[in-house]
Amino acid sequence: MPVTSPAKLIDADRLWARHMALARFGAREDGAVDRPALSVTESEARAQLVAWGREVSLSPFTDRMANLFLRLEGRDPSLPPVLAGSHIDSQPTGGKFDGAFGVLAALEAVQAIAAQGGRPLRAIEIVAWTNEEGSRFAPGMSGSEVFTGKKSLDEAYASRDQAGILQGDAVRDVLSRDVDIPLRDSGFPIHAYIEPHIEQGPLLEAAGVPIGIVTGIQGTRRYRVKVTGEAAHAGTAFRAERRDALMAAVRMIAAIDRATLKPDDTKLTVGLFQVTPNAPSVVPSEVLFSIDLRHPENEVVDAMDLRIREIVEAERGPCTVELKQIAHAPSLTFPGEIRSLIVAAAAGEGIPAMDIYSAAGHDSRQLHYVCPTGMIFVPCRGGISHNPAEWAEPAHIAAGAKVLANVIWQLAR
Amino acid sequence: MPVTSPAKLIDADRLWARHMALARFGAREDGAVDRPALSVTESEARAQLVAWGREVSLSPFTDRMANLFLRLEGRDPSLPPVLAGSHIDSQPTGGKFDGAFGVLAALEAVQAIAAQGGRPLRAIEIVAWTNEEGSRFAPGMSGSEVFTGKKSLDEAYASRDQAGILQGDAVRDVLSRDVDIPLRDSGFPIHAYIEPHIEQGPLLEAAGVPIGIVTGIQGTRRYRVKVTGEAAHAGTAFRAERRDALMAAVRMIAAIDRATLKPDDTKLTVGLFQVTPNAPSVVPSEVLFSIDLRHPENEVVDAMDLRIREIVEAERGPCTVELKQIAHAPSLTFPGEIRSLIVAAAAGEGIPAMDIYSAAGHDSRQLHYVCPTGMIFVPCRGGISHNPAEWAEPAHIAAGAKVLANVIWQLAR
Repeated sequence: MPVTSPAKLIDADRLWARHMALARFGAREDGAVDRPALSVTESEARAQLVAWGREVSLSPFTDRMANLFLRLEGRDPSLPPVLAGSHIDSQPTGGKFDGAFGVLAALEAVQAIAAQGGRPLRAIEIVAWTNEEGSRFAPGMSGSEVFTGKKSLDEAYASRDQAGILQGDAVRDVLSRDVDIPLRDSGFPIHAYIEPHIEQGPLLEAAGVPIGIVTGIQGTRRYRVKVTGEAAHAGTAFRAERRDALMAAVRMIAAIDRATLKPDDTKLTVGLFQVTPNAPSVVPSEVLFSIDLRHPENEVVDAMDLRIREIVEAERGPCTVELKQIAHAPSLTFPGEIRSLIVAAAAGEGIPAMDIYSAAGHDSRQLHYVCPTGMIFVPCRGGISHNPAEWAEPAHIAAGAKVLANVIWQLAR
Repeated sequence: MPVTSPAKLIDADRLWARHMALARFGAREDGAVDRPALSVTESEARAQLVAWGREVSLSPFTDRMANLFLRLEGRDPSLPPVLAGSHIDSQPTGGKFDGAFGVLAALEAVQAIAAQGGRPLRAIEIVAWTNEEGSRFAPGMSGSEVFTGKKSLDEAYASRDQAGILQGDAVRDVLSRDVDIPLRDSGFPIHAYIEPHIEQGPLLEAAGVPIGIVTGIQGTRRYRVKVTGEAAHAGTAFRAERRDALMAAVRMIAAIDRATLKPDDTKLTVGLFQVTPNAPSVVPSEVLFSIDLRHPENEVVDAMDLRIREIVEAERGPCTVELKQIAHAPSLTFPGEIRSLIVAAAAGEGIPAMDIYSAAGHDSRQLHYVCPTGMIFVPCRGGISHNPAEWAEPAHIAAGAKVLANVIWQLAR
């Protein structure tokens, strides 16, 4: 086996062209990508990935969550493989790089390793996890959660999208469209997992540094709050007699917003707000809204959790309220052994790198608990993500793939 | 022609059975009726009305808004007809009586008049106006607004439902399903219009009086408010840098709610609230919400209009806001000549009646400006409407039809 750096064989133009090609699956007129988890659109993008993998003799596999794997066989197929990738589902008005970069960088890195000739000792697998975003089936990361055993297949299958479709049925739909992709069991042993991703924050760009060595992921709690009142006629029901679910929800959200402004790195988002019956002249009988709470310190998240529970009770008025925590992920720190490999890989290529904290959650959060895991960040313009304006520079994309190629080569050779 | 009271020929059992039969079109499991304007469901209910009309030789007509008329011919067909009815579209979780009672009471009254033998001098037409509720195509009352010339056909046709369907296309769809229903021009002269309706308020029930002689309708303004911010990642975008459309909308609504609590008969409702992209981990880029403002005094409505405009600007934060008034109807008083006829008809049957103000808007608001118009209210349980629990007593339904029969007989004979 040659011991030269596979980073030298990264084809930056091909890597960029694949980003633009993948972004056409679900492309919106405003430049955004709308590629819901387990949709026909995602299934078509998945077929494109498989086609690219087959061109360089990678073997596709899938599992009962429709996670997609493209395997470069190792000299010893019995050893746990090195895994690298991310996801290809998007938010409803998502960008071209969130998730896609991790999968395409892994494909390019594996292609570079294969191009060296010979084989690594361990197999290397590119992975695209199902439903990372959670905007179609909540909560997200169901693909990696089932793979790592955190969630049962039955529980994941029972989640429904807003149209009432079961995640299980959507998985079966995607699998039925697959052509010659063998089904494997989930949860096989993994030697290490590396996930490249755009930063989705402004720090790398501000520092002018193309590579972030991710130290950890901030803690998060997610909730669904259901406020139940009573429908009434907008013209006849007196205010004092109403049980207006929307006004109660509005009071709760305004109070939660005010209560979580400090410390100022607290992230509090109400992204989902559904009204029943949602008609202009009917007092709403029910509101369902989401809360997404994140902060790097577990103590801050826990204290705000208590405050949120107090507020929804205090502001419900004549309505009833039900608060359900649907996800709780404490802050985590990635192991030093993987971070050191990323530091060395960047240094070896002469690419500036710095430590950085991940404010966003990623599938690496799940893999962290079953194998040595790390993340490589590249800058994105203005820190903007989940937005049509999301953008990463071709040179940064290529730098990320180069560092990844050397890291997984070190792990697999 | 006989001069006996047609009220004696009202068949209370048939009238009640027709209410229950009509409520099956769009029946929900919770007892509510979901019969959107110009839907297939409404079209099927319309066919049922036509069938009932044909059984007693009433001739159906429609117009380019799909308003439905069932005509009992008069001795002099050249005279403007007497019109009575209401609407059969419903709110998404509406009741069995709102609208339906007015149409079915008119059908029963005309059937009673026809059963006397002979013909009235003037034709009598039962009418079901299109899209009174406005929950599918906003604003409501588009059928009566076009009929009375308040709104152009083009303007009504251009309104879209939440799925993006044009009201014009929905009208054509309904007309294409009609079987042998001649199309007439709108806006022909009307001798008088009488609309029976459930009160949708608690006063008649509280007073124990089965008939309300409606003195007028309270003033109303309706708005759509569009708040535009910027989508961002819930985990990475700092609060201070966000342009969160939902948080701005919540601040506006909370402030508008507080500012309109006095006088305490002010009705302020935010019934519609739509979020883009409406995903749990995306900071919302846009919120569209409705405001429905009503009060019996025009001065109060006008003062609050100014206050609402101030608040949306004051609370928008880093977002932009666009407030559009989509409807403005001042308070009105029905003419004494029609109210006197209702008083006399109730007295003639020995049915207790009282004056009452309408807090809700009705198609009679539009007809009031083109012909002598009046309304007959009957009680509904607890004053509840736009709700599965909406309920009216069979005896009150029959009382309303009896009074109506005598009023239109007086107007038409």
